[in-house]
Amino acid sequence: MEKEEPRKELKVSAIENGTVIDHIPSQNVFQVIKILNLSNYMNQLLIGTNLDSNKMGKKGIIKVSNKFFKSKVINKIALVAPTATLIVIKNYNVVEKRKVEIPEEVYNIVKCFNPNCIANHENVETLFKVIAKDDLKLQCHFCEKITAKNNIVFL
Amino acid sequence: MEKEEPRKELKVSAIENGTVIDHIPSQNVFQVIKILNLSNYMNQLLIGTNLDSNKMGKKGIIKVSNKFFKSKVINKIALVAPTATLIVIKNYNVVEKRKVEIPEEVYNIVKCFNPNCIANHENVETLFKVIAKDDLKLQCHFCEKITAKNNIVFL
Repeated sequence: MEKEEPRKELKVSAIENGTVIDHIPSQNVFQVIKILNLSNYMNQLLIGTNLDSNKMGKKGIIKVSNKFFKSKVINKIALVAPTATLIVIKNYNVVEKRKVEIPEEVYNIVKCFNPNCIANHENVETLFKVIAKDDLKLQCHFCEKITAKNNIVFL
Repeated sequence: MEKEEPRKELKVSAIENGTVIDHIPSQNVFQVIKILNLSNYMNQLLIGTNLDSNKMGKKGIIKVSNKFFKSKVINKIALVAPTATLIVIKNYNVVEKRKVEIPEEVYNIVKCFNPNCIANHENVETLFKVIAKDDLKLQCHFCEKITAKNNIVFL
């Protein structure tokens, strides 16, 4: 069974059980924490930013003890951390590794690009349908206008 | 010269140079990050929450590589982390240890308790004079009313 690197090599220590979110663009680590509502998490979090990475130059990593995320929940981070790898740990062993996937819907994470949209005026949470994943296009549930990748503003 | 504990004992690895903010009430770690504006920090941060502590039961710790804080800046966290210890590290050695101190003024961290205060209506940053440190009392610069410890709401 694949093991995490020996503990002495890790800047951010191994966890016994839980989920490692690796290869986060370093400047987006705290946005991931916000999206996953981890700032009030009652178990151990271990976090590193601006760590060296062969793949990415610099990366962030979040290790969430005793937490196992449903895909529906963890894929919310795909917009801010499309490169993220999810590693499920049990008894210090890697039991699963997968990439995040851009979900079908994006709820309460992105602002609607259309200034006239009701979501920018009423107290409603934003909701988009993802109509293109590669060249990211989000269609607003309320006004139906497209918010494209370079217009994405996070709430 | 005092050294940090041997690396293999640390959940949050030793840093070569910088500042360790230890003994933070665990639930306030992200507030400390916000107050010190560390979410965009360009060097390495290593963070742990809900770590075991002899002194406090559970604690948070933030290690800020290559950063040395002036007292005026770091004492801003004293309201949310009065128990915090600051440890200055050079070449992996502890060169200084001190406690945070409640500052004389509190700027843009706390909300004024007086709902009629101009600071709650105009786009001004709040400012308080600390008139009592033990039984915390903050006097608003604008309306002169006292916001006491149990009325403190952080911005």
